[in-house]
Amino acid sequence: MKIGLADTTFSRFDYAPVVLKVLSQSKPKVDVQRYTVPGIKDLPVACKRLFEAKCDMVIACGMVGKMPIDKQCAHEASLGLQAVQLSEGKHILEVFVHMDEAKNEKELASICENRARKHAQNALMLLFDQKQMQRRAGTGRRQGKDDEGPIKT
Amino acid sequence: MKIGLADTTFSRFDYAPVVLKVLSQSKPKVDVQRYTVPGIKDLPVACKRLFEAKCDMVIACGMVGKMPIDKQCAHEASLGLQAVQLSEGKHILEVFVHMDEAKNEKELASICENRARKHAQNALMLLFDQKQMQRRAGTGRRQGKDDEGPIKT
Amino acid sequence: MKIGLADTTFSRFDYAPVVLKVLSQSKPKVDVQRYTVPGIKDLPVACKRLFEAKCDMVIACGMVGKMPIDKQCAHEASLGLQAVQLSEGKHILEVFVHMDEAKNEKELASICENRARKHAQNALMLLFDQKQMQRRAGTGRRQGKDDEGPIKT
Amino acid sequence: MKIGLADTTFSRFDYAPVVLKVLSQSKPKVDVQRYTVPGIKDLPVACKRLFEAKCDMVIACGMVGKMPIDKQCAHEASLGLQAVQLSEGKHILEVFVHMDEAKNEKELASICENRARKHAQNALMLLFDQKQMQRRAGTGRRQGKDDEGPIKT
Amino acid sequence: MKIGLADTTFSRFDYAPVVLKVLSQSKPKVDVQRYTVPGIKDLPVACKRLFEAKCDMVIACGMVGKMPIDKQCAHEASLGLQAVQLSEGKHILEVFVHMDEAKNEKELASICENRARKHAQNALMLLFDQKQMQRRAGTGRRQGKDDEGPIKT
Repeated sequence: MKIGLADTTFSRFDYAPVVLKVLSQSKPKVDVQRYTVPGIKDLPVACKRLFEAKCDMVIACGMVGKMPIDKQCAHEASLGLQAVQLSEGKHILEVFVHMDEAKNEKELASICENRARKHAQNALMLLFDQKQMQRRAGTGRRQGKDDEGPIKT
Repeated sequence: MKIGLADTTFSRFDYAPVVLKVLSQSKPKVDVQRYTVPGIKDLPVACKRLFEAKCDMVIACGMVGKMPIDKQCAHEASLGLQAVQLSEGKHILEVFVHMDEAKNEKELASICENRARKHAQNALMLLFDQKQMQRRAGTGRRQGKDDEGPIKT
Repeated sequence: MKIGLADTTFSRFDYAPVVLKVLSQSKPKVDVQRYTVPGIKDLPVACKRLFEAKCDMVIACGMVGKMPIDKQCAHEASLGLQAVQLSEGKHILEVFVHMDEAKNEKELASICENRARKHAQNALMLLFDQKQMQRRAGTGRRQGKDDEGPIKT
Repeated sequence: MKIGLADTTFSRFDYAPVVLKVLSQSKPKVDVQRYTVPGIKDLPVACKRLFEAKCDMVIACGMVGKMPIDKQCAHEASLGLQAVQLSEGKHILEVFVHMDEAKNEKELASICENRARKHAQNALMLLFDQKQMQRRAGTGRRQGKDDEGPIKT
Repeated sequence: MKIGLADTTFSRFDYAPVVLKVLSQSKPKVDVQRYTVPGIKDLPVACKRLFEAKCDMVIACGMVGKMPIDKQCAHEASLGLQAVQLSEGKHILEVFVHMDEAKNEKELASICENRARKHAQNALMLLFDQKQMQRRAGTGRRQGKDDEGPIKT
């Protein structure tokens, strides 16, 4: 199995070491191919090219600015990522962090690290362990912060 | 006939038991195949794969957070689900519950259960009883809460 | 010629009798095929299936709730209807009424009846009388309420 | 060369005479084919059919109401027009006027006339004179009102 | 290698000299082909045609007005550019400047120049030096203003 890693020079956090560490611990082993682009709107083509290079899944990492135009760019990027996924029939796990999710730079880094790590774990679970994924259905899992857990009634 | 059930680990409600109970009571019998993903934006690929596995219809269950970004994610997921439906020519019934639809956790669970149950019934009616579906046209049916009924003039 | 009629169980107004009455008076005669679904987001697949059943045009009737999420659903449904139209190269006339267009139930029913009737007439004019349609270009025609007429200068 | 003209019965301004006058003065001569539909959301199929009838370009004229739902319709129509353009690899020049662009009916008519005339001129320039188009790059041209001109620094 | 340059007559800044200067200094040499259109919504077809003319990448330059409708047009243009990129599997670097990004005309020109220059450099790096691009991942690069740099923790 081969997993693609697409990221950007716009991002203020370097997701690659976090993702690569999780993927390196995978059993069975996975190959990794990387593709860096300027910004999130360039990620869909990067992902398409990674699928053309035989990746079975891609983790797409990006950071989103605080202005309304940045939100619109993220929306356009996400729609592009949907289109690529559907033309390939393969998953792209989107690790996007919005700069206004955090109160300061330390918290921003923490969210980035947490979201990247957990989605790298999700990538492996989707590829190798659908049973475990199903056991987690409806359990309120979160990436970037603590899990919320299932509804308490 | 075979019905797909796609759901998420993000959701705080486990829709599967509700949907599976309704489908198990179907006459004629239906097969069910399940696919769990991290979040709602991963559902379109899950549905596409369920159709590739010969499902005739898919019920896609997810929960949507309270923030504006969550609404945007739901919009992107829904557009992806539209694209899959149109490429396949088959229905995906969307069981999405927004966390801000309810005042508390108990009401949230109630909406989830009601919407999942009624859409599982809709799935069977769409597959097996278009006559009954047509008799209900314009009657103000709701999923997640009580029916509104037809306009009173 | 054959016209499809797609409608929903969500709608509180039953558009079918209004549309069917207009179509029954068509010269030349048209065949009609109907397909009912739960809500407006299920209409695109319904229309696609009606085109697969050899319809030359479809009239898609739905009602839209008052909440922001309802507006978003209508947007997603309309984009799906655009996609179906373009893949088929055939028109779908959208008879959508928003519940907040009216002050009360009586006015709501009136808008529904007017919009359905005039769009059924438009369907026949598009199929059989492009000359008449062109004579009406720029004349401020409205469906659901009175015509506004051309700009007075 | 052949240019399509698509317009609507919803519009309160009749764009056709303005467009046809400009196109009639073209050297070399161009053929024109027209297609009228009820509203702007019906324009994408009209344009697709005009391209199927061998048009090399289409001018799509419409008017947009003042309500939020009207803006959403215009957005859906524009996305449909994008899809048609890209499937054909040919331009559709969009002559859309929003009713809230003008303070009164006289100004509204003036904007409509100006935008239609200038875009008909643009259509001919795109077809026959890319050199002239390039000389105008970055010069702040406007349709519907006076040119803004290049940035003064 | 061949790079396309698409721009508009709507823009108040002439991006072409800035882009062409950077591209002329490329080693290895690149060919350039240009295509000018009226506005940003005409750029997707321009880019598609440039790819049909064997361009390996396109730089699409445009300016966006200050009104809400202008933002909507930019969104539609960007979605069209996404669609072209994905159908071709090739990058379009979007050099869009919004008129409300700047306080005055001098600052507006500065943003335009900076964004065009840096994206022309990005184009060459994407084509010829993915290693350098990867070294810049997560370093907070910006086009149109100064780099923000990586998160300081």
